[in-house]
Amino acid sequence: MTADEKLSLLRQLMKRESIDAYIISKNDPHQSEYTPDYWNQVKYMSNFTGSAGLVVVTMDQAGLWTDGRYYIQAERELANSAFILHRSRDHGVRCFEEFTADETAEYGTIGFNGSALSMSQVKKIEKLIQLKHIALKTDMDLVGEMWDDRPALSKAPVFNHALRFCGVSRAEKLSALRKIMKKKLADFYMISSTDDIAWLFNLRGNDMPCKSFFESFAVIDYENAALFIDKDKTRDVRSELERDGITLMDIGDIYEYLEQYNNGRVVLLNPDKTCYSISRILNNREISECETDITTSMKAIKNSVELANLEKVNIRDGIAMIRFILWLKENAGKGIDEADAADKVTEFRKAGENFVEPSFTTISAYMANAAMMHYCAKRGACARIRPEGALLVDSGGNYYDGSTDITRTIILGRVSDKFKHDFTLVLKSHISMADAVFLYGATGTSLDMFARMPMWKECVDYKSGTGHGLGFFLNVHEGPQLLTMRPNAAVFEEGMIITNEPGVYREGEYGVRTENTMKVVKYQDNEFGEFMKFETFSYCPIDLQGVDAGMLTSYEKDWLNNYHKMVYEKLSLRLPAAERAWLAEATRSI
Amino acid sequence: MTADEKLSLLRQLMKRESIDAYIISKNDPHQSEYTPDYWNQVKYMSNFTGSAGLVVVTMDQAGLWTDGRYYIQAERELANSAFILHRSRDHGVRCFEEFTADETAEYGTIGFNGSALSMSQVKKIEKLIQLKHIALKTDMDLVGEMWDDRPALSKAPVFNHALRFCGVSRAEKLSALRKIMKKKLADFYMISSTDDIAWLFNLRGNDMPCKSFFESFAVIDYENAALFIDKDKTRDVRSELERDGITLMDIGDIYEYLEQYNNGRVVLLNPDKTCYSISRILNNREISECETDITTSMKAIKNSVELANLEKVNIRDGIAMIRFILWLKENAGKGIDEADAADKVTEFRKAGENFVEPSFTTISAYMANAAMMHYCAKRGACARIRPEGALLVDSGGNYYDGSTDITRTIILGRVSDKFKHDFTLVLKSHISMADAVFLYGATGTSLDMFARMPMWKECVDYKSGTGHGLGFFLNVHEGPQLLTMRPNAAVFEEGMIITNEPGVYREGEYGVRTENTMKVVKYQDNEFGEFMKFETFSYCPIDLQGVDAGMLTSYEKDWLNNYHKMVYEKLSLRLPAAERAWLAEATRSI
Repeated sequence: MTADEKLSLLRQLMKRESIDAYIISKNDPHQSEYTPDYWNQVKYMSNFTGSAGLVVVTMDQAGLWTDGRYYIQAERELANSAFILHRSRDHGVRCFEEFTADETAEYGTIGFNGSALSMSQVKKIEKLIQLKHIALKTDMDLVGEMWDDRPALSKAPVFNHALRFCGVSRAEKLSALRKIMKKKLADFYMISSTDDIAWLFNLRGNDMPCKSFFESFAVIDYENAALFIDKDKTRDVRSELERDGITLMDIGDIYEYLEQYNNGRVVLLNPDKTCYSISRILNNREISECETDITTSMKAIKNSVELANLEKVNIRDGIAMIRFILWLKENAGKGIDEADAADKVTEFRKAGENFVEPSFTTISAYMANAAMMHYCAKRGACARIRPEGALLVDSGGNYYDGSTDITRTIILGRVSDKFKHDFTLVLKSHISMADAVFLYGATGTSLDMFARMPMWKECVDYKSGTGHGLGFFLNVHEGPQLLTMRPNAAVFEEGMIITNEPGVYREGEYGVRTENTMKVVKYQDNEFGEFMKFETFSYCPIDLQGVDAGMLTSYEKDWLNNYHKMVYEKLSLRLPAAERAWLAEATRSI
Repeated sequence: MTADEKLSLLRQLMKRESIDAYIISKNDPHQSEYTPDYWNQVKYMSNFTGSAGLVVVTMDQAGLWTDGRYYIQAERELANSAFILHRSRDHGVRCFEEFTADETAEYGTIGFNGSALSMSQVKKIEKLIQLKHIALKTDMDLVGEMWDDRPALSKAPVFNHALRFCGVSRAEKLSALRKIMKKKLADFYMISSTDDIAWLFNLRGNDMPCKSFFESFAVIDYENAALFIDKDKTRDVRSELERDGITLMDIGDIYEYLEQYNNGRVVLLNPDKTCYSISRILNNREISECETDITTSMKAIKNSVELANLEKVNIRDGIAMIRFILWLKENAGKGIDEADAADKVTEFRKAGENFVEPSFTTISAYMANAAMMHYCAKRGACARIRPEGALLVDSGGNYYDGSTDITRTIILGRVSDKFKHDFTLVLKSHISMADAVFLYGATGTSLDMFARMPMWKECVDYKSGTGHGLGFFLNVHEGPQLLTMRPNAAVFEEGMIITNEPGVYREGEYGVRTENTMKVVKYQDNEFGEFMKFETFSYCPIDLQGVDAGMLTSYEKDWLNNYHKMVYEKLSLRLPAAERAWLAEATRSI
C-alpha cells in the first residue's frame, strides 16, 4: 500500500470508531528515542524514517511532526503523499497536541494507543481540550489492526556487563537509588526507560542494531527489584540476577503486577517516559512525578572506572579514525562511494579491542548530502566520492568498555573559499564550546551559546543542539544534559560527558560538522562561585586543509595547536612509521 | 520592639493558633515587586529593606529568603537578630516552600495570610506537603495583629496618561486584549498586576515614591472593563473613564464582585500574580492559567510613539548625566557625600522637560559601598566622596514621556590596576551584550551568556541578571523579558527594551557597573532563520579613565569609539561650549 492508500484505510477505521483525529506515535511503551520497527507506526504509515516523528490524521489532514535535524529528509520521504510536514521547532508552528486540540471540533473524539503516548503528552492534550467537551479513546490501535506484515520483536539474549567495564555493581546501584527514593518519600519506583534499566542491572542486549538496551520495565521498592523482560532473553543471566536478589518477571505481566501491587502507596515515575496506559493503572496511588528519572541522573555521571575506560576507548577509536582518514584520502576518486566509506570506518574500528558494533548508523555524506544532518547512505543509491570537496563522517563505536561519537569533515581535494570559510566558522564555534569556562549551575540553554555566538555574528545557525550526553555502551543520545538553546533545566555536573558538534549546513551545497566528546571537570572555586570546564577526549586531527588561518584569533590557533599536539602524543607511539609520519603532518602547528 | 522581641511575640500568637510554621511575605495582594510599607511585613518583622524577601518562622528557626542582589545588605540588616539568611539562588539552598514543608512535622500546621502569597506559591507548598498530612491555615494575619504603628495606605489621586505620551488609547488596548482573550477561550480575565492595569487604562498614580502605578485589580470581559481602585483616588479621571465605558468599583469590593460574578465560566489569570485568597473564590470556575499576563506581554513591546518618546527622553537624560558627572568630578574631595551626589543627579534631571521623579531610588555608592548592588546611601550616615577611586551611580528618571535607567562608575582620581582591570572587564561584557546578534526565539537564559562569557573566562561572575525590561513611566523592573542564566522562557521580540548592566563586585573593595538601555530590533532574515540585535539608546560617556585599552580587542575598541561618537552627535549641539568641550574629550577615540 502507498502512504495515501494507508491513510484512506485508516480513515475508514476512524469512521467506524467515530474518531475525528487519530494520533500515531513511533514510540514504544518506554518512549524510547530509537524503537524496533515493530513499534514504528509512523514509518509504516508515512514512510518517514527519522528517529523523532509523530503523525496526526484527521478526516481532511495528515501531518507529520519532526525537528530540525530531519526537515530535509522528511520533505523527501513525504513527497508524493498527502502528509504535510510540521517543523516542530520553528516559530509559530503548533505542536501536535495544539494541532489536534484545534482541529477537533467541540464534542468530537480524539483516538490513540495509550501505550504509545506518554502520560505528559496525554495530560497536555487533556488540558488543551478541557473547554471543548472532546472525548478521548485511549485504547485504539487502529494502525496495528491494518498492519499485516508487521515485523516481529527481537528475541536476542541479554548478557552481563562485566564490572571491569561498568565499575559499579547492581547491588551498589540499587542501594544508592533506594537512598534517593527514600529522600523523595517514594514507596516504589516505576521505571520505563530502557537504557536506565540496562544501566541499573548491568545488563546489555541486542534488540536492534547499534543499540545495546532491551525492552523492559522495572519496579523498585525497598525489598524487591523486579525486572520485566521477555523471559526467553534471560537464559544467560538468570542465575546471576537471581543470586543478586533480582525478581525476573515476564514483560507482559507488568500491567497485572501493578494492578495487584500492594507494597506501597506513593509511586515515583517520570511522566515523560511512562506511557499513558501504565499511568492509568497507577492513578489510584499517589503519583510523585520526577522530571528526570533518578536513574537517568545517576547514569549521566560517569564513575571513575567508566571515565578511565573511556580514555582508553577513545585512543583506540582515534587510531581507527586515522586509518580511515588515510584510506579515504588515498581512495577518493577511485570508485568508492559513501556506503563503502561507512563500511570502512567500521572495519577499522572492528580491529580494535572490545569492539561490539557501531554506536549508531554511520553518517557518511558527500557534499550536498552532508547538508542533511542525519543522512543515511543507501548502498547502490548513494554518491560516489570524488577527489574534491569533502566527506562528512559522523560515526562511533560501542565497545564493551564504552562508546564513542566523533565527526570529521574530511577534505578530499579542491574546496571553495566559501566552504573553507564555513569550515573555519564551525571550528571557531567548536573551539569556543570546548574552551568554555562556566559557573556551576549553568544549564545547556546557556552553555549552548558558547558554540552559537561565533556563528550568529555572521547570521549563520544550525538547526540542532550543539551536543548531547553519550551512553556508556548504551544509548548514543543520553540525558539529562543537553546543549541546546531550548529551555532545559539540567545542570552540568562533574563527570558528565557531552558531545560538541556545531555545524554549517547549506542545502544543495555541502555540510560541515566537527564533533568531539568532552567531559565536565571542576576548574576553580573562588569568591564568585564554583567554576567548571570541559576536557575533550576524542583524539583525531581536524583537517587543516579546511582551515582559513586568517579567520582564527591567536587564542584559537593556540587551542587548535594544543589539541593537535595532544592527539599526536596520545596516538603516535601506537602507530607504525608511515601512519605516524602522516599524523605528524596532520597535527602540525599552524 | 527589636526583631527578636517581635519574633517572640509572633511565636506566642502561633502557639495560640496551633501553627508550627508561619510564612510572612512582603507582598501586597498583587505580588508587586515594590510594595507600600503598609504591606511590607518582612521589613516590619526583620528590618530587611530589600525589594525581594520572604520570612518563615518556626518555633526554633527564623529565616529570611532573598536573592544575590541583597546578600550583603541582608547580612547587615539581620545582624544582631535571630534571623538566618537563606541565599535563595545559591546551589543547594532550599526554597522557602521546601524549607517550610521540611521543617513542619507530619500532622503539623502551616499558617499564612492568603492575600500575601500567590496561588503558585501555595500550590507548591500543597504539593510538597501532600504526603505529610499537614494542615494549612490560610487566613492568618498574625503580623497585622501585632503591628500597632502600621503605616497608612496612600490616598494620592490617579491621573490620565496623555495619548501623546503613551501612543495607544485604552479603547484600542482593550480591544486588542479581548481578541487575545477570545483566542484563549476565556470568558473573563482577572488582572492583579498593578503596572499592567495602569498601562491598560492609561492611568498613573503616586502610591509610593518613584512608582507611578497604584493599587488596583481589573476584571475584563467582552462587555465590561471593571477597574477596582480606592474610589477617592479617581476624582480627576472618573468622568473620562466613564465616558470610555470603564466601570469604576471600590477596591474592597473585588471579593464580593467575583463571588457574585455571573458573566462567564472560564477565567483567565496568572497564578504567579493572583493572590491565594482570590484564587480560592474562583475555584468553582474553570481557571485557565497564563504563565505571563497577556497585558504584560502587550506592554513589553513598546509602540512607535513610546519608542520615539524614549529616544527624546534619553537625550534629555544624557544631558542631565553629563552635567552630573562634570559636577561630581569638580566637587569630589570638597566635602560632598554619597547622598549629596544622589540629590544632585535628580536635580539635573529635574531641569529637563516632563520630568516627574526618579524612576527608582538612586544608588550612589562610593568604593566599598558599591560592592552592595542595591546600596542606599542614608543622609548623615554615608561615605564622603574623595578625589580618588570611583563613585557608582545607578539612577534614572520617570518622565511623562518615558523612563530611563543608567549606571556609570565615575572615576574621581587614582584607581588601582586591579580596579582598571575589572572596569575594563565589565566594559567587555557590556560590549559583548550590546553587540549581540541572535536568532529569533532565543530567551534570556541564552542571551545572558553574551555578557557573562568574557567574565567567566577569568572565573569572575556577578550575582544578578544582566538586564531587565523597563516600564514606560511605570515599574523600573518589567517583564516578561529578562537577561539571566536562570530558566526563563520569554522570547525577545522586536520593540522590547532591556537594560545591559554587567558588573564586578568585590566585597570590602569596590563595585563596578556600566549600564545602558537597549531596544530589540530586526537584523537579517536568511536561510538560517530570522536574526535580531540590540540598539543602545542611553547616551552618556563611559569613563575612559577606567579603561585599560590593552585588554580590548580592536573590535571592542571600535564599538566603544562608535558608541562615544554617537553620544557626542546626539548631545553636543544641545550643550554650551564648555560642556561640549568636556564631552568631546570624554568621548574621544582610543
